[in-house]
Amino acid sequence: MFRLNNDSTYLMPAHFGGYAFDPSYKATQRATMLSVSFETDRAELERYIPEELELRAPEVQVSMTQLTEINWLSGGHYNLVLVSVPARFTGKKGHVDAAYPLVVWENRTAPILTGREQTGVPKIFADIEDLHIYRPHYATSVSYEGNTFLSMTFEAGGSITGKDLEQTKVQLRSLDLIGWRYIPKVGAPGADLSQFIYFPQWIEVEKAYMGKGTLQWTELSPMQNPRQHQIISALASLPVKKNIQSVLAEGEVVLDTTQARVLE
Amino acid sequence: MFRLNNDSTYLMPAHFGGYAFDPSYKATQRATMLSVSFETDRAELERYIPEELELRAPEVQVSMTQLTEINWLSGGHYNLVLVSVPARFTGKKGHVDAAYPLVVWENRTAPILTGREQTGVPKIFADIEDLHIYRPHYATSVSYEGNTFLSMTFEAGGSITGKDLEQTKVQLRSLDLIGWRYIPKVGAPGADLSQFIYFPQWIEVEKAYMGKGTLQWTELSPMQNPRQHQIISALASLPVKKNIQSVLAEGEVVLDTTQARVLE
Amino acid sequence: MFRLNNDSTYLMPAHFGGYAFDPSYKATQRATMLSVSFETDRAELERYIPEELELRAPEVQVSMTQLTEINWLSGGHYNLVLVSVPARFTGKKGHVDAAYPLVVWENRTAPILTGREQTGVPKIFADIEDLHIYRPHYATSVSYEGNTFLSMTFEAGGSITGKDLEQTKVQLRSLDLIGWRYIPKVGAPGADLSQFIYFPQWIEVEKAYMGKGTLQWTELSPMQNPRQHQIISALASLPVKKNIQSVLAEGEVVLDTTQARVLE
Amino acid sequence: MFRLNNDSTYLMPAHFGGYAFDPSYKATQRATMLSVSFETDRAELERYIPEELELRAPEVQVSMTQLTEINWLSGGHYNLVLVSVPARFTGKKGHVDAAYPLVVWENRTAPILTGREQTGVPKIFADIEDLHIYRPHYATSVSYEGNTFLSMTFEAGGSITGKDLEQTKVQLRSLDLIGWRYIPKVGAPGADLSQFIYFPQWIEVEKAYMGKGTLQWTELSPMQNPRQHQIISALASLPVKKNIQSVLAEGEVVLDTTQARVLE
Repeated sequence: MFRLNNDSTYLMPAHFGGYAFDPSYKATQRATMLSVSFETDRAELERYIPEELELRAPEVQVSMTQLTEINWLSGGHYNLVLVSVPARFTGKKGHVDAAYPLVVWENRTAPILTGREQTGVPKIFADIEDLHIYRPHYATSVSYEGNTFLSMTFEAGGSITGKDLEQTKVQLRSLDLIGWRYIPKVGAPGADLSQFIYFPQWIEVEKAYMGKGTLQWTELSPMQNPRQHQIISALASLPVKKNIQSVLAEGEVVLDTTQARVLE
Repeated sequence: MFRLNNDSTYLMPAHFGGYAFDPSYKATQRATMLSVSFETDRAELERYIPEELELRAPEVQVSMTQLTEINWLSGGHYNLVLVSVPARFTGKKGHVDAAYPLVVWENRTAPILTGREQTGVPKIFADIEDLHIYRPHYATSVSYEGNTFLSMTFEAGGSITGKDLEQTKVQLRSLDLIGWRYIPKVGAPGADLSQFIYFPQWIEVEKAYMGKGTLQWTELSPMQNPRQHQIISALASLPVKKNIQSVLAEGEVVLDTTQARVLE
Repeated sequence: MFRLNNDSTYLMPAHFGGYAFDPSYKATQRATMLSVSFETDRAELERYIPEELELRAPEVQVSMTQLTEINWLSGGHYNLVLVSVPARFTGKKGHVDAAYPLVVWENRTAPILTGREQTGVPKIFADIEDLHIYRPHYATSVSYEGNTFLSMTFEAGGSITGKDLEQTKVQLRSLDLIGWRYIPKVGAPGADLSQFIYFPQWIEVEKAYMGKGTLQWTELSPMQNPRQHQIISALASLPVKKNIQSVLAEGEVVLDTTQARVLE
Repeated sequence: MFRLNNDSTYLMPAHFGGYAFDPSYKATQRATMLSVSFETDRAELERYIPEELELRAPEVQVSMTQLTEINWLSGGHYNLVLVSVPARFTGKKGHVDAAYPLVVWENRTAPILTGREQTGVPKIFADIEDLHIYRPHYATSVSYEGNTFLSMTFEAGGSITGKDLEQTKVQLRSLDLIGWRYIPKVGAPGADLSQFIYFPQWIEVEKAYMGKGTLQWTELSPMQNPRQHQIISALASLPVKKNIQSVLAEGEVVLDTTQARVLE
């Protein structure tokens, strides 16, 4: 019969074996990231921020990242779209500042499962087209079962160099997240687990370009996207008060998975 | 700020709202199911059965199901391949007999998330080709990122009718599962949740065909399938001592999601 | 060395062998067809009708067909969206009335190649979602690399029965097409082949439902769909003067491929 | 009514308009190419070489190329697998040496159509996985509707530099092809067009790595791949007498489409 090993960490199905828990392990990958940020209405945005957190600024970042050469997928690749806000968790031991992900769409199921179950990152599936690059124009579309709900474009200006690049590297470096891991009760309302989790990660930027980015949301009907239409409507309805910054960056992304910790 | 509603059930991301918990709710869908069963070696098979369960017979069922008109996906569709064994959980209040899923591959992420997080069904992703039907021949292939690991074929004999059909309806009816919901600790080995869950479901068979089914496994390298290769190897290595039954059935599948319960 | 066989028909690559030309051969398949027709402006529509043809009525039919159990694909399946108009070719031997396809989108390349190269049907690729069926609602979306350009919905009324069904069977039966096979010159403008081809095909309707259908076109930018955006714009710009009919039908489709002939 | 423009070149559907024929036009794109070559048996290989050509050496090159930033697709991308042999066409005006493609698989329909109809390159569809890169290991798989038929791997040695790189650039530069454009008669065996076409193209190599490449073919049944299984069997059956070279190269690929010409 199958027995769990005390030194291992498992994902379902557990009975085929787990992974030795190794605190020195880090997930690494190459990344091309297109990020578009805007200022919105604080009250509108706070409707989606749980009480345990504080919104540090009424700003939303939408970033599409194309990941390749992923070590924990033996060199595989996938794309993601992260929608996040700057948040603070204040607990017994002080506070933690990090991005709070409202939602992450990914076009690969394996990282969706690890992200949700290990660190509470609210990942769900969408088709995310690899960047079309017709210099200086970049474009991608995010869709669900043939229904487009987000189009992103970027028109690159000049490459950032010298001191400006050094500054940009510092500014973009932190990708730390606060996840809210929520696992429902069985056969009843409410939760069996509800935890806030700090998940450290960063990008070593190698190249960066400023430019002009655009976001275009298309709301979908329940029949077009039965499980996500209300998420898309909520995001599409956030007013854009001011565009903050659009940037394209390339580099190495590191996820310090084993250093994630429950916030208390 | 966002507050959870006590009467609702949520999935991540929770902050966009949940669903009212409604005990009368049932998930319904049309199904075409191709099932191939075989007898294997008990000791080999028990390596993958957790101690909390008892293996009722050294038998493995591999069934591919094509689901359409799914109510909770507003009419959407997906395919699955379920590999299961007959199991028993014995607790304080007596025992429960149901199928224990060793693994379920699905080609849609939404039901993978609900299955894992709500009821501990060990669902993971694969591409599963819709049945190719060249009467009396049926075929499907299951692959991961372009690497085939399971091919199933079926050659239909005559349609089952009359009393035989009534018997088949009874025999195939139960699709009850015992899931093992396992959610790991954050930043440490071990589990934050580890529960066995009974999940009632059934099929109302309308048509059925006996026939000759085949299963062909192809083992994959870690680079071809970094997260599942050991599962495929384990299943491919189970000896086939005797073919038990191959059947193709069509009908209505009902999942009694809210009646799932933790086994104690 | 490889030599062509005089009795065979070939497609590229020819050097791996062809198929014996068999006049009794017919392509057969199961079909579910959702068809929406409307009246438009004659002058607007005639911009896309070649001079060799006559437009019999300023009507456009948009039909999505889900094909399964395809004999020439050994039981495979694919979906198509046909946009066609009623046309007449008048030649030396009299006239031929059939549908003239303005464009056919298909989500499988093999039938695109045979359709274009054998019979001049202007097939191009798109992703076409299998029908979502949430009775009485039906929906599908057509997209290109993540960009939706056509959404179709249908709300079924009652099933057509008795005499009405017999009439509907007759009315829907003919799927005859007139293709325009155009193969360009190499290294110069103009054509090496430019022929109008009559291609007989039909559907044996088994079930049919009247209902309310809708079409919603979304124009795309050149960067979203570099090779098809002008086709989509042209179709999206056709005024809808009157809705004619929306019908959902199921049955058997037969293509009499070898009886296709060049119109003269 | 629609009229063709004498100065334009068209593809089906022609009636939505063509492209001005511009002899200065070139198709450009970024490319990562993994190429594996081997020596085989001359008589076995010549079974697939048309009489109009001469086989210059009994060698087969299998190359997977990942194309991005494609100008004629407004920055889109696709992958291809080219299987080719060194060939010579001798006509009235002397001879032309170029690669003769036995088959080209591509995972995008648009370039399949232009390649076949404009220049006789025998392109057909397959799913071709983007390279998985787990340095120094590279891998890709080629499949059809879930059935893998070719796996390629590469283990990179050191980067080629200095004089060796200059030599490699010269050696790899030519990608010239001889296509056999074959368009069948309608309603009869035989061809309406059968032409050999010279299509100039090249790669400006920027980086290159020698290494150890492998090819693994898996034959498929007619039901798994109804239109291509005989092509796969033919290629899988070619004996590997000697491995010649495996190389990974990155650079810019240029297709001089308008300079293609019919060989006479």
